[in-house]
Amino acid sequence: MSMITVLDKGYVRLVNHMGSDLTVVNAARVSYAKESKELNERDMKLITFLAREGHTSPFRHVILQFEVYAPLMVARQWWKYVVGSAHQEGTGDTLEAWNESSRRYITEDPAFYIPSAQEWRGKPENSKQGSGDVVAWALGDKYTQELMEYVEEGVRKYEAALQDGVCAEQARLFLPAYGMYVRWYWTASLQAVCHFLNQRLEHDAQKEIQEYAKAILQLSQPLFPNAVGELLK
Amino acid sequence: MSMITVLDKGYVRLVNHMGSDLTVVNAARVSYAKESKELNERDMKLITFLAREGHTSPFRHVILQFEVYAPLMVARQWWKYVVGSAHQEGTGDTLEAWNESSRRYITEDPAFYIPSAQEWRGKPENSKQGSGDVVAWALGDKYTQELMEYVEEGVRKYEAALQDGVCAEQARLFLPAYGMYVRWYWTASLQAVCHFLNQRLEHDAQKEIQEYAKAILQLSQPLFPNAVGELLK
Amino acid sequence: MSMITVLDKGYVRLVNHMGSDLTVVNAARVSYAKESKELNERDMKLITFLAREGHTSPFRHVILQFEVYAPLMVARQWWKYVVGSAHQEGTGDTLEAWNESSRRYITEDPAFYIPSAQEWRGKPENSKQGSGDVVAWALGDKYTQELMEYVEEGVRKYEAALQDGVCAEQARLFLPAYGMYVRWYWTASLQAVCHFLNQRLEHDAQKEIQEYAKAILQLSQPLFPNAVGELLK
Amino acid sequence: MSMITVLDKGYVRLVNHMGSDLTVVNAARVSYAKESKELNERDMKLITFLAREGHTSPFRHVILQFEVYAPLMVARQWWKYVVGSAHQEGTGDTLEAWNESSRRYITEDPAFYIPSAQEWRGKPENSKQGSGDVVAWALGDKYTQELMEYVEEGVRKYEAALQDGVCAEQARLFLPAYGMYVRWYWTASLQAVCHFLNQRLEHDAQKEIQEYAKAILQLSQPLFPNAVGELLK
Repeated sequence: MSMITVLDKGYVRLVNHMGSDLTVVNAARVSYAKESKELNERDMKLITFLAREGHTSPFRHVILQFEVYAPLMVARQWWKYVVGSAHQEGTGDTLEAWNESSRRYITEDPAFYIPSAQEWRGKPENSKQGSGDVVAWALGDKYTQELMEYVEEGVRKYEAALQDGVCAEQARLFLPAYGMYVRWYWTASLQAVCHFLNQRLEHDAQKEIQEYAKAILQLSQPLFPNAVGELLK
Repeated sequence: MSMITVLDKGYVRLVNHMGSDLTVVNAARVSYAKESKELNERDMKLITFLAREGHTSPFRHVILQFEVYAPLMVARQWWKYVVGSAHQEGTGDTLEAWNESSRRYITEDPAFYIPSAQEWRGKPENSKQGSGDVVAWALGDKYTQELMEYVEEGVRKYEAALQDGVCAEQARLFLPAYGMYVRWYWTASLQAVCHFLNQRLEHDAQKEIQEYAKAILQLSQPLFPNAVGELLK
Repeated sequence: MSMITVLDKGYVRLVNHMGSDLTVVNAARVSYAKESKELNERDMKLITFLAREGHTSPFRHVILQFEVYAPLMVARQWWKYVVGSAHQEGTGDTLEAWNESSRRYITEDPAFYIPSAQEWRGKPENSKQGSGDVVAWALGDKYTQELMEYVEEGVRKYEAALQDGVCAEQARLFLPAYGMYVRWYWTASLQAVCHFLNQRLEHDAQKEIQEYAKAILQLSQPLFPNAVGELLK
Repeated sequence: MSMITVLDKGYVRLVNHMGSDLTVVNAARVSYAKESKELNERDMKLITFLAREGHTSPFRHVILQFEVYAPLMVARQWWKYVVGSAHQEGTGDTLEAWNESSRRYITEDPAFYIPSAQEWRGKPENSKQGSGDVVAWALGDKYTQELMEYVEEGVRKYEAALQDGVCAEQARLFLPAYGMYVRWYWTASLQAVCHFLNQRLEHDAQKEIQEYAKAILQLSQPLFPNAVGELLK
């Protein structure tokens, strides 16, 4: 299994990876000029020790590569983490690369995330940020319909503008872009991936990005069970 | 002058800066343990030499700090540069920090970029990307009206959803977000700023981000005339 | 006071800085489009909150610039931190620049760190790394003498080789380089500086780099008392 | 062939790699949601175009991992590139990780680079930096002998100090460290590797690091012939 569907039209695909739990051990032990060929108990203890003490550089020699297809609002939260932006711990040099599709010139038809009737959430109780319980079905259903219509109207106007000769980079002003799907390649070290997971699996992360984080976890854990297990403790 | 207005509602404000042309010279000469107090001809020649030979690390010891208010589509292009993303030269560690407002919890009313009748551009002649000449006034006027109405409708729906108890992080799906203004702090080294300018002052950069690049240039050049002059050659 | 002497011939000099405790508050509040002009109690609480919750990106908008003169073995430990190397938490993108003198072509006479008789330390009791108590004076005195002689012999051979026409980049093989002083410019964000301090003020850091960390702390704390206080808690 | 010997005792070993020329193409085309399975002529043209126009981000999704054993003076030049230091173009975020052995606690016996009689070079003709032609055999032979003796003396004193109970982190002050071999893991993107090669294959780079750069090239080129060929043009 190397692809997991997320939300109504999105997915995470594991494109490639490099290394194993052993890579962490061998990178840490370069000091001692010894290389393990098979993971033994001493190696596992070393991984536990490195993770516990915050000696995370050996985890940067293990690499994962994903293709992600997600609404723009999810992509932005993800990048913010990469840029080390607002209210996030900065871990910037984290061996990351990012290549993304752009609505400035793409010809692919735009696709949008439309929450279903039972997916709309209410305000959180005691916080300015995040969300609370699911709202009543009837209310959710109303907003699903309204959003679908509003998005269709925007797409019609976007296409009419293109038809009339307006450039794509301005015509896109008609698109309700937060929910628009974008696609990107993300290449990151295991340290970076686990830092992302530690932030985005949290209950106060936006629900939609939590879903993507769960997919990333499901694809990563079987490859590096010890390292992921210890870094997410 | 420390603030320049851009587009219909945006601006760039110089919040702070550190160093001068001399900082570049002194950082380069740490090798020789000599510090200049005033910029002389030899110093200027050194700046020319460093820029010409691509020895740009001394330019990283000069820092600028801006507050920017721009449509999301401009912010995204800007970040892509910072992340070193699609089709950009990666200069990632470039001493940059970024703090941005978020529609997940902000209470400020949303504001949007609406091109005026004479600002709508046509398709480029020989390219899949960018834009060409301005379109006919009547066509532009039509799309200005339509965009205004479409945005107003989206904001009404966004506010109705909030009123009905839907969480802000989902209600925003109704906002035509590409044109929505966001505000951020950008702290970057002179090397990073000039790399950004070299990319974004180019004729094939999106027109809207070119406007922001011009404002950044206008605020930066008087502070470091030699260094900026040489790095933008 | 902007310069502090360290070890027998070294120093740390504060060259420049940008921002104040208020910068952290304003960068964090860009979300709310409010700017403080004076630090009040709510601001201090915000700094405490940001540091406690690990929301460190606002601390990256405050910049410090130092000139450091230190033995190569100290410089290497320092760089390792910057590169995010062995057994350190990676925080790489941390707004840092580094410009250093080089023995490949410098003409300045080499200077060396020679511990005095009472500065030699013994092996640690229960660790493979670090050091323990000071050794007996007579033993220390013996090694101070021996090191001085050995260094002088190396410098004589280095200079003879240069005299005989050997290139500097090979002649330097005769220098006992771990103790040789090098000089560099370090420009870093407050987040990066405090991360460095959290690592290098620790009792298990090498004694010599602890001395430099203390000088950095002494020069930084008065400028940003709240931010430094909270980040070093 | 995955290991190449360099200098008298050093080596470069290819530990692992991820991706191929196709990865570059697929990362660039994520924009168009098309994935190539085999490299065709259009793909090669795209690689040529990306390299020529400086659109280097797709090259960051290809990763290489090396173990390097080299004199400290080579390691320092290498790191300076990684930190983006003195007189180098900063490309910092370049997906790099570094884990290195340390003389603070290692128990492995120290090994040193000793140039043979015909390897000593003279001063450069018209430059403050670098080296010129090989010196006369007799002179070279003299310095090979002297360096061997000086190094042996330093190692004897280092071991005597350890024997007398002095801590390793101070005893190492007796080692002529520029020529001492250190071992490290380097994980870097193809963009970073080629940037390193473009700098270090140059005739004015130190001869010893050129040798390492040649080994890196020899191990990398067969894996990504198109990408390496275009990036080194």
